[in-house]
Amino acid sequence: MIIPGIIAEYNPFHQGHAFQIQTLKKKLQADYVIIAMSGNFVQRGTPAMTDKFSRARMALSCGADLVLELPVLYASSSAEYFARGGVSLLNSTGVVTHLGFGTETEQTDLLLKTASVLNRQPEDFRQTLRKELKKGLSFPAARTAALKKYFENQNIFFSADGEQILSSPNNILAVEYLKALEYYHSPILPCPVLRRGADYHDTSLDRNFCSASAIRKHCRESAKSSLPVDDIVSKLPGKVLPEPALDILKQYPHPFLWEDDFSMLLHYKLLTESAEQLSLYADSSPDLAHRIKKEIGAFRSWSSFCEHMKTKNITFSRLSRMFLHILLDIYQEDYRLFPKPSCLRILGFRKNAVPLLSAMQHAGSLPLVTSPAQAGQTLSDSAYRLLAYDLKASELYRAGVTARGDFSLKNDYRQPVIRL
Amino acid sequence: MIIPGIIAEYNPFHQGHAFQIQTLKKKLQADYVIIAMSGNFVQRGTPAMTDKFSRARMALSCGADLVLELPVLYASSSAEYFARGGVSLLNSTGVVTHLGFGTETEQTDLLLKTASVLNRQPEDFRQTLRKELKKGLSFPAARTAALKKYFENQNIFFSADGEQILSSPNNILAVEYLKALEYYHSPILPCPVLRRGADYHDTSLDRNFCSASAIRKHCRESAKSSLPVDDIVSKLPGKVLPEPALDILKQYPHPFLWEDDFSMLLHYKLLTESAEQLSLYADSSPDLAHRIKKEIGAFRSWSSFCEHMKTKNITFSRLSRMFLHILLDIYQEDYRLFPKPSCLRILGFRKNAVPLLSAMQHAGSLPLVTSPAQAGQTLSDSAYRLLAYDLKASELYRAGVTARGDFSLKNDYRQPVIRL
Repeated sequence: MIIPGIIAEYNPFHQGHAFQIQTLKKKLQADYVIIAMSGNFVQRGTPAMTDKFSRARMALSCGADLVLELPVLYASSSAEYFARGGVSLLNSTGVVTHLGFGTETEQTDLLLKTASVLNRQPEDFRQTLRKELKKGLSFPAARTAALKKYFENQNIFFSADGEQILSSPNNILAVEYLKALEYYHSPILPCPVLRRGADYHDTSLDRNFCSASAIRKHCRESAKSSLPVDDIVSKLPGKVLPEPALDILKQYPHPFLWEDDFSMLLHYKLLTESAEQLSLYADSSPDLAHRIKKEIGAFRSWSSFCEHMKTKNITFSRLSRMFLHILLDIYQEDYRLFPKPSCLRILGFRKNAVPLLSAMQHAGSLPLVTSPAQAGQTLSDSAYRLLAYDLKASELYRAGVTARGDFSLKNDYRQPVIRL
Repeated sequence: MIIPGIIAEYNPFHQGHAFQIQTLKKKLQADYVIIAMSGNFVQRGTPAMTDKFSRARMALSCGADLVLELPVLYASSSAEYFARGGVSLLNSTGVVTHLGFGTETEQTDLLLKTASVLNRQPEDFRQTLRKELKKGLSFPAARTAALKKYFENQNIFFSADGEQILSSPNNILAVEYLKALEYYHSPILPCPVLRRGADYHDTSLDRNFCSASAIRKHCRESAKSSLPVDDIVSKLPGKVLPEPALDILKQYPHPFLWEDDFSMLLHYKLLTESAEQLSLYADSSPDLAHRIKKEIGAFRSWSSFCEHMKTKNITFSRLSRMFLHILLDIYQEDYRLFPKPSCLRILGFRKNAVPLLSAMQHAGSLPLVTSPAQAGQTLSDSAYRLLAYDLKASELYRAGVTARGDFSLKNDYRQPVIRL
């Protein structure tokens, strides 16, 4: 069987995502497509605008056959651990043959070579990197400069737009996927798909292919005038979402959530924990924790505090991830304790994918989980502890929905797996 | 010197409070009046509607000479520990000669005898109490019935309205003060002051003497229509607040806070902590913690969840106190670790009270604290740990004010002692 896997957030699911799935299916003559999807919180350290089950449903209604939850430990971590978590999850299904991912270049070779250098970290590359950092460049800029020099020294072709290529967010993530495949000696074959449409960071909405962040921006701004969800979504232009996903989003029965819905929780934690405690969370550091305690008087909201605290090397996303980890009690230590996913949590599947589930039961290296309640009995202690972070993340998400006056979001124990 | 002390919340300060201070001053020819006042959270387990410094200022502008902070550990505990904390704080000033407190009866003798029985817990009293509880009476009702029987058996006069007297909230608190004075063998003399005006629980506003809860109810309901504080306070009828207190309340620069401003924090904690963890907080129990986890799906807000969870023997206030303890990490264990206040935290004083402060420095058994920042250096570890709960409570209060969109409340380190 040919089974591509995709690591995604689908926040929300849009035309670009549908295009990627269709392209993979056609190109590979795929039997099934498996998605490793972030749960209720995403890599930027923020809540997904809609809950994970609604997003899994969007994916399943637009070409995906099975959606697994990427544990929040990886879903909310730096690109490197995000990619490793996703690749490891797909590896452990035992059935995924290809990894599909978006790129903004056709120079796949450059991405592959970059991944290899970054994994190997040869000494002359590291020397240049240190030099560039000392010059005052930000880490990504210094890394790109060091790569360029390394390739030139090795007489490896580095195109004129090489630096630009290695700076695009999607290509950076692509490199991380390639690194992770190499890191795990994975039998999964990389299968890049050239992205169509807007840049990742482009927040304009005037094309059919527009970025998820443009869609979120529209929804967030419309939400300020407290329009009902249906009206907000109806105002999205043209066909930015495939119709089945659009319908699901229109009928979403809860308010959209944003990081600022959790401002008070964050403020409370930052106020009441010591710098020493704060320094232990993932993505924190003693320096950062002290600076936070010093600047806490400037706290207004989650997002404005990220803006206030960010520096050349400490990005908005890094801060936001750290803040999420504070609310979820995720410590730096946890990445050592849980280097890989410990179960295959199924959020939903299409009924035609039942043979796929059987295949995973035989070939997979991790237990399938459809019910968190049962998982408490069947998983090992350590495996359950990792799953417990996802349950906690869902409880946090529910607290956010409740605080917005909606009391109807089910908890993870009561939410049945989606079967389409 | 004649120096009465009063244990109070002043939430907010009203005519009844002013009357009590004036009566004590006149009756005792007092030199100074000292207040042991709750900080930012009160005995009902809720935030005070205005912060502690504004309330201290009200008291100082209406007859008080010195306001000490009753540590939140005692201020937010059951009537017994509340009274003990207050009496112990006043004891340790070394200068307080009388304890002033409101009663709703002139039968002081009945209150004194009741206090003594409750402290001694004679066997026949306890037997009757157990019997009455088995009949299904609530604890306060069973206790009153057992007291009545005990007094009758001992041929001690118990007036026809004795049961009613022992059921009034102010008299219950008076009994606790008397118990605490006896418990500590305190040299402080009890000095009951008959309350004028409305009942403690009366929430009508049509007299000059009305209860603090009636004033809060008015403010809370007006606040729903998002009127500015000034307008809300201006609509209070007649002279329910003495003029200086009214002016302070009118000019209060922050939003009034209510327990439901902390609903999301509470929800998050109740969702994310296990029943075992929840059972360890002060005013919790394993049973209660399990019931909370079972019923958490019904959570809508702090107050509605208290209503939902309360039973005959577990009151709204007990639940609310437990919830506050969850947010402040106050454990049952802490009452054993910190049986008494460990410093005299000064919130404010009148300039004419400087000799009083000198006297306390000589005669008092605890260090005076005017600056929490300095206290970190001067207090013992254990004394500072108790103070740290008050600092944490203030941070929690600030988080509530910030979440309401007001960013101007200073933290405890930056708030100077009030000198009027």
